[in-house]
Amino acid sequence: MELKNDLILRAARGEKTERTPVWLMRQAGRILPEYRAVRNSLSGFIELVKNPDLAAEVTIQPVDILGVDAAIIFSDILVIPEAMGLPYEMIEKKGPWFPQVVKSESDLAKLNIADASTDLGYVIDAIKVTKRELAGRVPLIGFAGAPWTIFCYMVEGHGSKTFSNARKMLYNEPALAEKLLEMITESTIAYLKAQIAAGADIVQVFDSWAGILPPQQYEDFSLKYIKQICDAINEVPITVFAKGAYFARKSMANLACETIGLDWNMDIAESRMLIGEHKTLQGNLDPCALYGTNAEVEKATKVMLDAFGPNRHIANLGHGVYPDIDPEKVKVFVNTVKEYSQTLRH
Amino acid sequence: MELKNDLILRAARGEKTERTPVWLMRQAGRILPEYRAVRNSLSGFIELVKNPDLAAEVTIQPVDILGVDAAIIFSDILVIPEAMGLPYEMIEKKGPWFPQVVKSESDLAKLNIADASTDLGYVIDAIKVTKRELAGRVPLIGFAGAPWTIFCYMVEGHGSKTFSNARKMLYNEPALAEKLLEMITESTIAYLKAQIAAGADIVQVFDSWAGILPPQQYEDFSLKYIKQICDAINEVPITVFAKGAYFARKSMANLACETIGLDWNMDIAESRMLIGEHKTLQGNLDPCALYGTNAEVEKATKVMLDAFGPNRHIANLGHGVYPDIDPEKVKVFVNTVKEYSQTLRH
Repeated sequence: MELKNDLILRAARGEKTERTPVWLMRQAGRILPEYRAVRNSLSGFIELVKNPDLAAEVTIQPVDILGVDAAIIFSDILVIPEAMGLPYEMIEKKGPWFPQVVKSESDLAKLNIADASTDLGYVIDAIKVTKRELAGRVPLIGFAGAPWTIFCYMVEGHGSKTFSNARKMLYNEPALAEKLLEMITESTIAYLKAQIAAGADIVQVFDSWAGILPPQQYEDFSLKYIKQICDAINEVPITVFAKGAYFARKSMANLACETIGLDWNMDIAESRMLIGEHKTLQGNLDPCALYGTNAEVEKATKVMLDAFGPNRHIANLGHGVYPDIDPEKVKVFVNTVKEYSQTLRH
Repeated sequence: MELKNDLILRAARGEKTERTPVWLMRQAGRILPEYRAVRNSLSGFIELVKNPDLAAEVTIQPVDILGVDAAIIFSDILVIPEAMGLPYEMIEKKGPWFPQVVKSESDLAKLNIADASTDLGYVIDAIKVTKRELAGRVPLIGFAGAPWTIFCYMVEGHGSKTFSNARKMLYNEPALAEKLLEMITESTIAYLKAQIAAGADIVQVFDSWAGILPPQQYEDFSLKYIKQICDAINEVPITVFAKGAYFARKSMANLACETIGLDWNMDIAESRMLIGEHKTLQGNLDPCALYGTNAEVEKATKVMLDAFGPNRHIANLGHGVYPDIDPEKVKVFVNTVKEYSQTLRH
């Protein structure tokens, strides 16, 4: 089905657009009462992720309610470890928790490369349902975690300020770490290709824990695998968002990706200089800016749009929208992007 | 009493030294069995902080056991909120927790400027005992949290990945935020001056949550107050360690401080270029590098020393030493700095 609004895809490919496209990380879920109504009808977060019809419903909600220029499939980056044989639980207010973690070769031997069509069939089905129900209104974004970030959870077993157990393996057993990273990478490539085959119009790789590695280790244990993913995905545009990896911006310019996401700490002009003119940049309003008044949200959004300029920019926050943000403030953000970015074209 | 080893002070002032001085953030506590023996003789962490004789004992342990070139007073940055009228608890494995937080003008009205000689007399006493027992072997480092980091805890009430409640106040009630930051700053200046009067030979300001602010907000709500502290402290050298504030390195070059701490993400050559030749740099080995073998620790330490060069460098990790690090690995780090840095002078 032909897309009625393909702004995000054209912006990703560097084509001129009538205005800047806009969406929000974590737009599906969290802030919308309509989401919570669906979520509360089930026993848990993972049950919602595994229910294609309801996952599609919450995926489409922000398109209807917030007016964003893309839907992003409601899912979780941790479906990959589960599909590889390492299941997780989502503990309310605490986050993910893995009963088993990878500590040794024998732990690794129990894992498999994820089979996207079987182990992850519920995500693929959710994408198909979403595409059908979106009926071409906006593009659908597929996604996966970057291998390094997935590795962090598979070795540490839960969130952490330092992920020192995961990072310890890079020093103590680098060969084991590399084997696990290779398995995750292979699983992720197959998974993203399955998402694209099912209808994802663009995909994003989230490296949430990029910022905890020293620059050289980030090259060796994270960018190396992100590069393999970018090289393998040629069907649709790909976006890489490496939160906190300010030191890798210059390197990331060499990835075979269309778009690079910036977090809210990254200076826009400096990032453009480091990354060059051949990538689209995505971001990067401080998520906390949406706590301001309508006038303040509008002003902060305009400052951001001025800094990025009209071309090669996809407007977003610099991180996922925070759970207690008023959806009305998100609408002010979205509408300001839509209206003000047109004026930048003249 | 004259210092027998004043390497860290001379390095801070930019004087040439026979070798690079070395100490570790969090060296007092955590990793030493000798520390845990003292800690377990009391009911909690805060009891140890408030016991001058035992605080002095654990302060001196790493000088004896690890051979570091400085002691740092065993204490906590959160003694300041407590002295301002906002007490905290330290919950095992969870971190600090404040029963009350600052949400409004009326919460602020209940607080006072900390009186270092009374409210914080236990730290001042611990410094006096430590100085006496050190008997001039090495300098003693005093410290405090940066106002922004203290603000984070006083508003959020506990650790957080996003500190979105604390950051919300910057958008919603900037005048209230500024008043609280001013009170913390005034308290901190008096506290550091009292530490110096009691014998601290050098002081460090820790901005642990520097990295969560966008660059302009970091200037307005953090660096502004760190500048006031640096301007007020003229008695001894001062070090500023703003973890994650890579975007502020150029600005920090203008602070009236002698030393700037680098975290392990910060590229050494780039930091030197941004900060210039007139500051001493402190840091910045990845704390996880100490999980490696002795040979690996030695190699990583040498790579770091080569990158910093022989002048205007105080060797340290890029963050506090992690609790499960083998003290023997710390000794390899310390001894490598001592031995290898001499060879860089020829």
